[in-house]
Amino acid sequence: MLEIVNEHACFGGVQRFYRHDSREIGLPMRFSAFIPAQAAQGPVPALFYLAGLTCTEETFMVKAGAQRVAAELGLMLIAPDTSPRGANVDGESDSWDFGVGAGFYLDATEAKWARHYRMYSYIHELRELVARELPVDAQRFGIFGHSMGGHGALTMALKRPDVFRSVSAFAPIAAPSQCPWGRKAFSGYLGQDTAAWAQYDATLLMAGLNTPFPAGILIDQGLGDKFLAEQLYPEAFEAACRTAAQPLTLRRHADYDHGYYFIQTFVEDHLRFHAQNLAA
Amino acid sequence: MLEIVNEHACFGGVQRFYRHDSREIGLPMRFSAFIPAQAAQGPVPALFYLAGLTCTEETFMVKAGAQRVAAELGLMLIAPDTSPRGANVDGESDSWDFGVGAGFYLDATEAKWARHYRMYSYIHELRELVARELPVDAQRFGIFGHSMGGHGALTMALKRPDVFRSVSAFAPIAAPSQCPWGRKAFSGYLGQDTAAWAQYDATLLMAGLNTPFPAGILIDQGLGDKFLAEQLYPEAFEAACRTAAQPLTLRRHADYDHGYYFIQTFVEDHLRFHAQNLAA
Repeated sequence: MLEIVNEHACFGGVQRFYRHDSREIGLPMRFSAFIPAQAAQGPVPALFYLAGLTCTEETFMVKAGAQRVAAELGLMLIAPDTSPRGANVDGESDSWDFGVGAGFYLDATEAKWARHYRMYSYIHELRELVARELPVDAQRFGIFGHSMGGHGALTMALKRPDVFRSVSAFAPIAAPSQCPWGRKAFSGYLGQDTAAWAQYDATLLMAGLNTPFPAGILIDQGLGDKFLAEQLYPEAFEAACRTAAQPLTLRRHADYDHGYYFIQTFVEDHLRFHAQNLAA
Repeated sequence: MLEIVNEHACFGGVQRFYRHDSREIGLPMRFSAFIPAQAAQGPVPALFYLAGLTCTEETFMVKAGAQRVAAELGLMLIAPDTSPRGANVDGESDSWDFGVGAGFYLDATEAKWARHYRMYSYIHELRELVARELPVDAQRFGIFGHSMGGHGALTMALKRPDVFRSVSAFAPIAAPSQCPWGRKAFSGYLGQDTAAWAQYDATLLMAGLNTPFPAGILIDQGLGDKFLAEQLYPEAFEAACRTAAQPLTLRRHADYDHGYYFIQTFVEDHLRFHAQNLAA
């Protein structure tokens, strides 16, 4: 069921890479897990990390330096891949911001993509798989992510606050219906009817929020990020939070860009934020 | 002279990638530098990191998670590439453990390699370049490295304790004259006369040591390292240290392997060790 591809001792715990056959994707999928030493004593909370365009299940584990803090806090870290691999949909590798490496954490409805490109349902399949197979407390799941994965984390949490009790993001695509990356992905996967887009747009979902996340939402954004003005729109999400009375901590950092040197700088704050939210 | 290829804000400092024309290599070379915020106030100590086979100037900066600690301690980190690039020596890319990505931090004497493969002298050129161009205190340089780069760090420090005042290593090739990686590199770059090999063998250099490093040498070695038995020989270096009355802290860690999940686990200890040695 869960095949261990490889594993590495890391900060007293273990960094694993898994492969499994996904029901939702209809193909084998890979994900990574950092399992802290505390998991040997009993179920631990888990934090799902959704990565950005072109990334894989390995990117965060290699580049973010998060295991040190997860080991201290007794948090499991789970990172899925960013799209199906090997679906062989015509044109799926033609661009870096659509298709392979760019699943956008949604379930495609356009015929060509609908069979395999089901990353929204896949994340829930993975969540259930992890709850069944790994030593986690499924009542204490949080989610965060970066860029496309920040979009993914915000939307997944806003749609299912019952299963993701804590959410944060680095430089998320916060209003995808309005930006080129999001419009390309949504029109390609979901078609031209923009009504169907709203269910995957964090800013629009926030406008319809019934119950705010009481502990707030944490977002870090670099002001030296070359994608900020054209693609990210944190100010739109910020305005929607204000309207919905959702507490938001949006930190704007001079000079920081869109990459993992930015993420590694602030990842400790995110892990501590989630650990606190999931402590109860 | 020094061209900035790119730079990224990181932990309040800046992660830079540089290119320069190297006199010793006779080709352009790249290196990376993490410059902590403290460098704006005056010269800081610097720690050179030598990477292992197949790595580049980027590997350590991306994978080790060291900038957080360097930022706290006010240490500059400098990481060179692992070989010339673009020398176009016949056969230089035929294997992963010799030629490109495998310069072994020595000056080749075999005719075919002698023009460009001069990584020993290059590291000193880089040291002088850094002392001239970056806000460092050249009286406070330390050096460490991993695998082939652990060999490099130990040999560079043992040959020039006057310029590298502090040394440590992760899973170094500690007795290269005795192991397949080392014998392949030494015979290829230096020829069959094993007398010429001794100047680049940490275990043999230790046997001739006049003045021990008073603060000791720190080495971390994983016991789950698949290269340990055949390639690394820490026990030979340990015996040589004992004979030379060189204090050595050789820590053997159950389960840890040869990769950067091992390095990221223990890198903080190395930075603190060097910062303490270089504090004076």
